[in-house]
Amino acid sequence: MIRINENYNLLQGSYLFSEVNKRVKAYQEKNTGRKIIRLGIGDVTQPLSPSVIAGMKRGVEDMASAASFKGYGPDQGYDFLREAICDADFQSHGINIGSDEIFITTGAKEDTANIQELFAQDIRIAIPDPVYPVYVDSNVMAGRSGAFTDGRYRNFVYLDCNERNHFTPSLPSEPVDLIYLCFPNNPTGQVATKEELKKWVDYARKNRALILFDAAYEAFIRDPGIPHSIYEIEGAREVAIEFRSLSKTAGFTGTRCAYTMIPRDLMAWDAAGNPHSLNQFWFRRQSTKFNGTAYVIQRAAEQVFSSKGKEESRAIIDYYLGNAKLISEGIKSQGWNFSGGTNSPYIWFKTPDGLNSWEFFDRLLSECQVVGTPGAGFGKCGEGYFRLSSFGSRENVQEAMERILQVKF
Amino acid sequence: MIRINENYNLLQGSYLFSEVNKRVKAYQEKNTGRKIIRLGIGDVTQPLSPSVIAGMKRGVEDMASAASFKGYGPDQGYDFLREAICDADFQSHGINIGSDEIFITTGAKEDTANIQELFAQDIRIAIPDPVYPVYVDSNVMAGRSGAFTDGRYRNFVYLDCNERNHFTPSLPSEPVDLIYLCFPNNPTGQVATKEELKKWVDYARKNRALILFDAAYEAFIRDPGIPHSIYEIEGAREVAIEFRSLSKTAGFTGTRCAYTMIPRDLMAWDAAGNPHSLNQFWFRRQSTKFNGTAYVIQRAAEQVFSSKGKEESRAIIDYYLGNAKLISEGIKSQGWNFSGGTNSPYIWFKTPDGLNSWEFFDRLLSECQVVGTPGAGFGKCGEGYFRLSSFGSRENVQEAMERILQVKF
Repeated sequence: MIRINENYNLLQGSYLFSEVNKRVKAYQEKNTGRKIIRLGIGDVTQPLSPSVIAGMKRGVEDMASAASFKGYGPDQGYDFLREAICDADFQSHGINIGSDEIFITTGAKEDTANIQELFAQDIRIAIPDPVYPVYVDSNVMAGRSGAFTDGRYRNFVYLDCNERNHFTPSLPSEPVDLIYLCFPNNPTGQVATKEELKKWVDYARKNRALILFDAAYEAFIRDPGIPHSIYEIEGAREVAIEFRSLSKTAGFTGTRCAYTMIPRDLMAWDAAGNPHSLNQFWFRRQSTKFNGTAYVIQRAAEQVFSSKGKEESRAIIDYYLGNAKLISEGIKSQGWNFSGGTNSPYIWFKTPDGLNSWEFFDRLLSECQVVGTPGAGFGKCGEGYFRLSSFGSRENVQEAMERILQVKF
Repeated sequence: MIRINENYNLLQGSYLFSEVNKRVKAYQEKNTGRKIIRLGIGDVTQPLSPSVIAGMKRGVEDMASAASFKGYGPDQGYDFLREAICDADFQSHGINIGSDEIFITTGAKEDTANIQELFAQDIRIAIPDPVYPVYVDSNVMAGRSGAFTDGRYRNFVYLDCNERNHFTPSLPSEPVDLIYLCFPNNPTGQVATKEELKKWVDYARKNRALILFDAAYEAFIRDPGIPHSIYEIEGAREVAIEFRSLSKTAGFTGTRCAYTMIPRDLMAWDAAGNPHSLNQFWFRRQSTKFNGTAYVIQRAAEQVFSSKGKEESRAIIDYYLGNAKLISEGIKSQGWNFSGGTNSPYIWFKTPDGLNSWEFFDRLLSECQVVGTPGAGFGKCGEGYFRLSSFGSRENVQEAMERILQVKF
């Protein structure tokens, strides 16, 4: 008899954004009047930039004739893209990452979900709370969570983030092997200083732990003192994998291209204490289960790193940061405590009047026709909080904030 | 201390095609003279068809303006593509598959590798030998294989395919829960009749087993009596998942689009005997670990199923089948036993003169500068066999066969 992976039954409800979409759809079916404005899921609205479109078009032309046609590409991604990334994101900032340490993929969601496959079943995992649900759910599916009781999985070490610690996790008080960090943070919008990251790198080096550093939002950093990459910290090459994505940087949410850095000196150990290269392990994983990102997408992505492409992306991010400012100002004028909104596309705030996250979600939807993301969907510490994202159009963001400011919560 | 998934250490060497590429590269570096002709990996050479290119271009245009821009798409794929597939591949052939049973992805390699995540750790798995290595390696990585001794993993039930049974696996003699089947077969080129498939469907229904049916090469079937889909067999909806791909059907090896069918009536059971919908399980898996196939790729794929697109694809497949005929005739004239070459892009033959597969690979490379795939890479039963694929250009296939026929093996 074919039996299921029973770990799936430990998952809590459906994937957060599926639940959000379900509620919005149900509301829409009953109410066909005022337009709904979505500031929920972090989905961009501005088109791909002219350079990116031009790169993609040239890629399409290549696919139209036998002489330039591309079949299977390298599993790790084309050299032209890996070298462009290496130069633009790392070498030109004095960060020591080589192109052979960069893996091109179809998304940071995919990468942060798949990376856990490389590790032993019984490692101890530290997960901030609130957190991007993919880190949690992928480990639940893999059987590492234990039972879910009182809002938490038994085997995970949660790193509470709340107003008291300015949404910045503290080092775990018990030993852990794998640590998920995300800065600028999703969902809280919080950033980390070099000192903050150094604390984690030092901890990982001392304890032979591994840091999974999600830098999907690094392009939103405008403060020159805030690190964009964990590899700006000395010793991080020995203890950290970094994830980056073009989704928010260049509007690729529907175009799908991301990249993951695994330094050659990064090791994990077998039970006998022998070191193994995680770069090689990931390459084996990818060459067995993945066949590369589409050529036309890689040609589009290449242009993100051209000098014109970089300018264009920066202008789009500035536009979203302008939205973030509008949202922060509105939230502030309501008198609600918030974090994020600068160096980050997300604004994270305490729901008013003691409403829980989903109650506030429902009221915002029914009274303002604005969709946000309930903080409780990101973890126990997210209860009583709410996330708005700045990826809408300027007009929609303005209208959404006007509607919110008119309601007495 | 961060520890590795030690199951990776049970993998045998590198992924087959990585090893092939390594040997070719080493040969090239030493020999810069005669051009190398690749009939190894099943990678296509003909460009995307005009309809597909036009669809992709329209998709690119959509991404260039805010009004038509697409961010995150549905995790399961856009309705326009799922409905086009549903109609062209199933409904118009009288096969009962609904569009809500179709999941769009980036490749059948990815899907056949990921699908095992849905199942319990201790299921019994039947794997034909020779076989596409991804089925084996993905289960090894997941910890289901046991030790590797004498050319085989202890916990798998191997279904031997050889000249005696015309490369058609027999039902297992011990109980199994999960069965991998691939027709037209990679690597042997063998096809299955309805009677043959019915035997498997009946077995699965009787034993509550599940069939994973890889139909990536169905478009090469020209014999009207050969089924294209397992769902042509009565009862298959209860016991089978089917994988299809545009890689070979429409030249998408470098463009990445595939689709997997999971009927709503398909169940797997928990240890307590409760049924669970695999369609729902896979949706949960995909919505957690995947963010959809790029919009422009789905727009290109849509055109594969238009009436003009279907004609164009058929013409390209006819071209490859013409290559397959040339290869088969050459192999036949050498007096080597072979299978495939009709209804299939692959020709599978016994190596001459008692050479083992890799010895023949090396001789073919050094004496003819032709790259094929050693049968041993597909399993123990593949030792002493060799695969040639018909995806080259006509000129290259002709030249390769001339070279081969000139050598006395």
